[in-house]
Amino acid sequence: MELWYTEKQTENLGYSCKITKTLHTEKTDFQDLDMIETTQWGTMLVLDGMVMTTDKDEFVYHEMISHVALNTHPAPKKVMVIGGGDGGAIREIIKHPSVEKATLVEIDRRVVELSKEYLPAISCALDHPKVEVLYEDGIKHIKERKNYYDVILVDSTEPIGPAVGLFTVDFYQAVFDALKEDGIMVAQSESPFVNADLISDMHKRISGIFPVTRLYLASIPTYPSGLWSFTLGSKKHDPINFDDSTKLTYETKYYTPKLHKAAFQLPKFVEDLLK
Amino acid sequence: MELWYTEKQTENLGYSCKITKTLHTEKTDFQDLDMIETTQWGTMLVLDGMVMTTDKDEFVYHEMISHVALNTHPAPKKVMVIGGGDGGAIREIIKHPSVEKATLVEIDRRVVELSKEYLPAISCALDHPKVEVLYEDGIKHIKERKNYYDVILVDSTEPIGPAVGLFTVDFYQAVFDALKEDGIMVAQSESPFVNADLISDMHKRISGIFPVTRLYLASIPTYPSGLWSFTLGSKKHDPINFDDSTKLTYETKYYTPKLHKAAFQLPKFVEDLLK
Repeated sequence: MELWYTEKQTENLGYSCKITKTLHTEKTDFQDLDMIETTQWGTMLVLDGMVMTTDKDEFVYHEMISHVALNTHPAPKKVMVIGGGDGGAIREIIKHPSVEKATLVEIDRRVVELSKEYLPAISCALDHPKVEVLYEDGIKHIKERKNYYDVILVDSTEPIGPAVGLFTVDFYQAVFDALKEDGIMVAQSESPFVNADLISDMHKRISGIFPVTRLYLASIPTYPSGLWSFTLGSKKHDPINFDDSTKLTYETKYYTPKLHKAAFQLPKFVEDLLK
Repeated sequence: MELWYTEKQTENLGYSCKITKTLHTEKTDFQDLDMIETTQWGTMLVLDGMVMTTDKDEFVYHEMISHVALNTHPAPKKVMVIGGGDGGAIREIIKHPSVEKATLVEIDRRVVELSKEYLPAISCALDHPKVEVLYEDGIKHIKERKNYYDVILVDSTEPIGPAVGLFTVDFYQAVFDALKEDGIMVAQSESPFVNADLISDMHKRISGIFPVTRLYLASIPTYPSGLWSFTLGSKKHDPINFDDSTKLTYETKYYTPKLHKAAFQLPKFVEDLLK
């Protein structure tokens, strides 16, 4: 018997992976959570029927949501991730020696627990002494802090279910206020081929609050269309002024200093979404 | 009833599009050819069960296989496309005023005829006075010409079926010989996520013949993984030296001069494939 998992990426598109087994399936307090073993991409975390991460392509998302902001900031010390319970962003953040504390605020404890069990290569840094894991509402956490973080990464699911509040002006203003005077935020902002309106809307909302707002792209095969965007809001430092002759002190599989700059060069139809 | 077309992109991956109808299906002398109407991507050309092009995302592939070489060359006059019977590359080529003749050499006449019928927005330039369409073996055509073309684009299917000869050292040498002293070739070279070995092999073969060999990337949602590569071989001009402040004299939806340069900045794991 062949078993296939299919994500309906849109009403009209299906993405199917052959699987060898279902490792875990559960309805948590917040969402449906499945962990499956795929032949193509290794272990895959699925939330509410949508691929969140896989062993074999997770490096793209986690490196690109983290290193662009962390290398744009001259010396990030306090870094926070909202969502991202698999721990992949945290693993990248603690590669930066300046970081003193990396705080993960994940609303769903089961994502963290099951990622530790089934995705050890992604979650491996969650017990690092610099890392703090809080199981609480990210929006509430942000609203309780002022002038506190250097970098905030919004590593959310799609704007449905528990993540819907992470795409509002109100939230971005709270993020702005929770950042120090030269702080930077990055939020995953979906695919230009599939979610063009969302990208335009987020850009308007974030650029209404942050003096520097930039969109950048990365190629993530297991996400709809394979092309993914991130929206960066910065109070002071512009990511396109990063010196791309910088030498990294850590290993990466996707991010390079030159790609950091290149990722902001957008296809024409994506540039047009930001007008 | 819902109808879905599924391409098995690898043994372990399926890509499915909801379709409203099958416009045409035929076994030509060379391959299985299907033209279907998809809800997500509009009309789709499928050869031997693999998506070749669609109305809604074709612009990426056709702009990126064409404009990088044509803008690297200072004044391309004679340009040739092998394969590419849908006419998309030809449409982009004749946007360049320096081009005097664009020759399409397509082995399968039915691809051209059916693209004219069902993909008018892609094939629209095939009757342009500067365009010559030849129905013959591209390898034979290339081997009969020496020091003749300024730019040759290898717009092939995957290295199976009729295209297998387009991935050999022998063929690349013939392309080199058919190019003028400052000629440039570009060949589509599949996905770094799915066809890593092919990319390495092609790079070795082409760099063994051409003094300048460069890989660049573009995001094509209907191709496996969504990330696609092109290998450029050049006798003289280096595409990364292109002046990205150049103003285009024609409209594009993906290609921009800045993206021309950025497309050569590769993710680390892709850089490593070329070592």
